Amino acid sequence: MKSADLTTLTISSRNYSSWSMRGWLLAKLSGLPFETVSVPIDASSRAELLLLSPSILVPCLTHEGRKVWDVLAIAEYLNELSPKAKLLPADRHARAHCRSICGEMHSGFSALRSALPMNLRAHFPNFRIWSRAQHDIERITLIWRECLAQYGGPWLFGEISMADAMYAPVVMRFLTYDVKLDPEIAEYCMRVLAHPHVAEWIAGAKAEKEDIDELDMEF
Amino acid sequence: MKSADLTTLTISSRNYSSWSMRGWLLAKLSGLPFETVSVPIDASSRAELLLLSPSILVPCLTHEGRKVWDVLAIAEYLNELSPKAKLLPADRHARAHCRSICGEMHSGFSALRSALPMNLRAHFPNFRIWSRAQHDIERITLIWRECLAQYGGPWLFGEISMADAMYAPVVMRFLTYDVKLDPEIAEYCMRVLAHPHVAEWIAGAKAEKEDIDELDMEF
Repeated sequence: MKSADLTTLTISSRNYSSWSMRGWLLAKLSGLPFETVSVPIDASSRAELLLLSPSILVPCLTHEGRKVWDVLAIAEYLNELSPKAKLLPADRHARAHCRSICGEMHSGFSALRSALPMNLRAHFPNFRIWSRAQHDIERITLIWRECLAQYGGPWLFGEISMADAMYAPVVMRFLTYDVKLDPEIAEYCMRVLAHPHVAEWIAGAKAEKEDIDELDMEF
Repeated sequence: MKSADLTTLTISSRNYSSWSMRGWLLAKLSGLPFETVSVPIDASSRAELLLLSPSILVPCLTHEGRKVWDVLAIAEYLNELSPKAKLLPADRHARAHCRSICGEMHSGFSALRSALPMNLRAHFPNFRIWSRAQHDIERITLIWRECLAQYGGPWLFGEISMADAMYAPVVMRFLTYDVKLDPEIAEYCMRVLAHPHVAEWIAGAKAEKEDIDELDMEF
């Protein structure tokens, strides 16, 4: 196999990098074979991750020797390579709806992202959520409720799609920070948590603990 | 004509809203007929615009009675409706490259966006640019240089595409804040500035001045 034929996905921390998690879930959902390349994180790159930038370094898909480095671009590219995986809904209006909420996640919810950074190994019961982050939580759960009502569940657009991958790290934050949820939303969160790809990602996050324990202590 | 048949694009300030400018340029480039609906801005919504969120209110495309509210989702939707407009490059790798840099603009460059907010009517000679914004400027001009070299110009992907629309507000910022540019990049900026759709948008920004003069004084 020539190196140009090898498809890789570069990610950073499974515990902290929500963008890595999204890219990896999308690649898994596409069904295409790929190798995961983890770049080591240090204090400065971890700080960068927490600064919310999805475009620095990770995730980056390398396919046919070319790089695709933004998570939405990765989703669209994988959808073109592997249409049968239905990362995007088949119906034109549903597809536009899916892209709208994925775009909203991609560029928005900065209060949620800064106040409740992804940290899969942690759990903070009764975490106090400030009002701007609460506003983001209400907007996100409204988005989910509308999708579940309109498309009938069990995933946001009926079948699993890129939207569920884009919002999976939010589900993880809701669980980490003990966010109070109504039964319908809590059920959706449990469905995401139980998905085999998500479970595999979380197991990976737990396994990487030893390597960066020192970092955890520095922060 | 039924109201469901009327295509509208909701925007806010032509002077301040970079997301509105992107959505409007994309709609114009698509060649589809549409009506522009301007929502009045007040002090709080202007503050919101400056807080960089593209997903609140604008731009929003309404087509066949359905809303598409994120600028990347609007671009993809318009590309599906009007493939002949070639908002996205025809070549698969170029298309992925285009989506990567559009995604990077969509979620990144927060230092540039907060330090150099779009303000088409203003001009600040010798504006002092802090280092994080300068880092964004260097990354953006690198992106442009790579595209112009790889696809041969005159636009980022040869023919005009969604990428030029996504970066057009950055061009405007470079001019407003007197950013020092090398000749190749300056020439690209002049090309964007001279595009008829951009010129029409700027004329609109100048025309809206009287309405919100008071606001300008408050800030």
